[in-house]
Amino acid sequence: MLTDLVAALDIGGTKIAAALVDDRGRVHTRAQRPTPAHEDGDTVMRAVTEVVAQLTVSPLWSSVRAVGIGSAGPVDAVAGTVSPVNVPGWRRYPLVERVASATGGLPVELIGDGVAITAAEHWQGAARGHDNALCMVVSTGVGGGLVLGGRLHPGPTGNAGHIGHISVDLDGDPCPCGARGCVERIASGPNIARRALEGGWRPGADGDASAEAVAVAARAGDPVALASYRRAAQALAAGIAATATLVEIDIAVIGGGVANAGEVLFAPLRRSLRDYAALSFVQRLTVTPAQMGADAGLVGAAAAALSRGAGAAAAGV
Amino acid sequence: MLTDLVAALDIGGTKIAAALVDDRGRVHTRAQRPTPAHEDGDTVMRAVTEVVAQLTVSPLWSSVRAVGIGSAGPVDAVAGTVSPVNVPGWRRYPLVERVASATGGLPVELIGDGVAITAAEHWQGAARGHDNALCMVVSTGVGGGLVLGGRLHPGPTGNAGHIGHISVDLDGDPCPCGARGCVERIASGPNIARRALEGGWRPGADGDASAEAVAVAARAGDPVALASYRRAAQALAAGIAATATLVEIDIAVIGGGVANAGEVLFAPLRRSLRDYAALSFVQRLTVTPAQMGADAGLVGAAAAALSRGAGAAAAGV
Repeated sequence: MLTDLVAALDIGGTKIAAALVDDRGRVHTRAQRPTPAHEDGDTVMRAVTEVVAQLTVSPLWSSVRAVGIGSAGPVDAVAGTVSPVNVPGWRRYPLVERVASATGGLPVELIGDGVAITAAEHWQGAARGHDNALCMVVSTGVGGGLVLGGRLHPGPTGNAGHIGHISVDLDGDPCPCGARGCVERIASGPNIARRALEGGWRPGADGDASAEAVAVAARAGDPVALASYRRAAQALAAGIAATATLVEIDIAVIGGGVANAGEVLFAPLRRSLRDYAALSFVQRLTVTPAQMGADAGLVGAAAAALSRGAGAAAAGV
Repeated sequence: MLTDLVAALDIGGTKIAAALVDDRGRVHTRAQRPTPAHEDGDTVMRAVTEVVAQLTVSPLWSSVRAVGIGSAGPVDAVAGTVSPVNVPGWRRYPLVERVASATGGLPVELIGDGVAITAAEHWQGAARGHDNALCMVVSTGVGGGLVLGGRLHPGPTGNAGHIGHISVDLDGDPCPCGARGCVERIASGPNIARRALEGGWRPGADGDASAEAVAVAARAGDPVALASYRRAAQALAAGIAATATLVEIDIAVIGGGVANAGEVLFAPLRRSLRDYAALSFVQRLTVTPAQMGADAGLVGAAAAALSRGAGAAAAGV
């Protein structure tokens, strides 16, 4: 018998996914829509209510106790609002209130998407059993979240772990966030590709100029492609080492499209980490690939919802 | 009547201070010795046992319930050892065991010195009432500590908050810690002075080439002196913004000799903070001078000891 079932929402700039998730992290019913990211706020919300409506017709719906939302950030868990950078129609949008009313008044837990994937990796993935961990997504952007003292650390507003926007190069290139030399500005997929192109690398006949194509070239020994991944690894290492030096983590879990490059990224990352994680208490720090895959956001949002109710111990967050 | 009294030890590279502190943070009996920093480990320990012996003869000693130690780091709170960078005779030195035996087996709590000043500022100083704070010392070195979710965050080994050794300039100058471009390498007093001298600033007739002398020149409008403080402020801002972006703090408290320069440091620091603290959830971040003065280390070590006993609520850590 299912004693604890929650509805999970994973809201990104590309898609809005929803699922019913039980207290063992199993995903039951799913629904998904593309995010109408460039439409007005109410149109975006309509996509959310549509996926929620698909869940409510499930025979399992009567067992749902709460809703967990992991959203592209920044979020404001105190106000219950979201302002995703890539969804301009939502600025301080009252998502929690709207989702509560779409679900008949269920309690709603809101966290940032980096915090959600962290909850998932800590509950069921590569950070399981680690009391102090940083989990990251390195993809179009760079996001993350923290586990401290055995518990998820969303921070007061649900945004903690935003490692993509710490500066590791204080005189570096301007970042769209407004700062300079942010980890994301150096290590994201588009920046890996940009740097390779600026260095003279050229895509093959298929015209694919993505970070994945740069990784293929790097594996074939292209020096410019290798250098672009090395630079990304250096920035990630400086950011991960900074995090460990500030809050004492012992593992950094890295997922997302750029992490799929494998050793092209992880080998120089491990080398650079030895350069930046210099103090004795951070030298045991390790980096490892994420394990949760595409469901991480949903499972993590579920973990956050379960942690407020009877499933807290089960979810371990 | 005193219900909770602890012995506090503040161990630095220059002096070893000790005191009896009550559960309201009042300092009763004091003792102090210069640190024989370049002697062997047992000689350094003898200075500790001497200050402890001075406390034990106090009529208040029978009320002492525990000992708190704030030590120059790195420390290892799990192993009970210390390895202060500036005290080469102590490497993984079993300080907790030695202090326990010097005090008749009292429970001993060990934290890093940056964590100790943070405990003090949170209990009685500029971070009082703030649930999420970074407290720093900017002096010969740069240290710090964190309050997260209303509680001191020493981290598993007692070293969390080591902001002086996060890199904000990944290609920057080598730091004695082994990394590059650390906050301390740019913002410490000796580096402020070095940069001014390299830029052509010259000390006055008294030959004083300290960061304090550079601050005097900056206040008189010397452009090289002003630029050196601006650069220190920029590095501090990048580090403080990184901390806020990672763990969501709303205040940074700064003490130490360099902070005594006042607006020469704080004015450019506030300006630079607007550049680096760009995301919505960190824009309310403020910086403010520390309030606890020279007793911060002792009061903070006491707070850590009290937090393990009946005085936890009183100490608020």
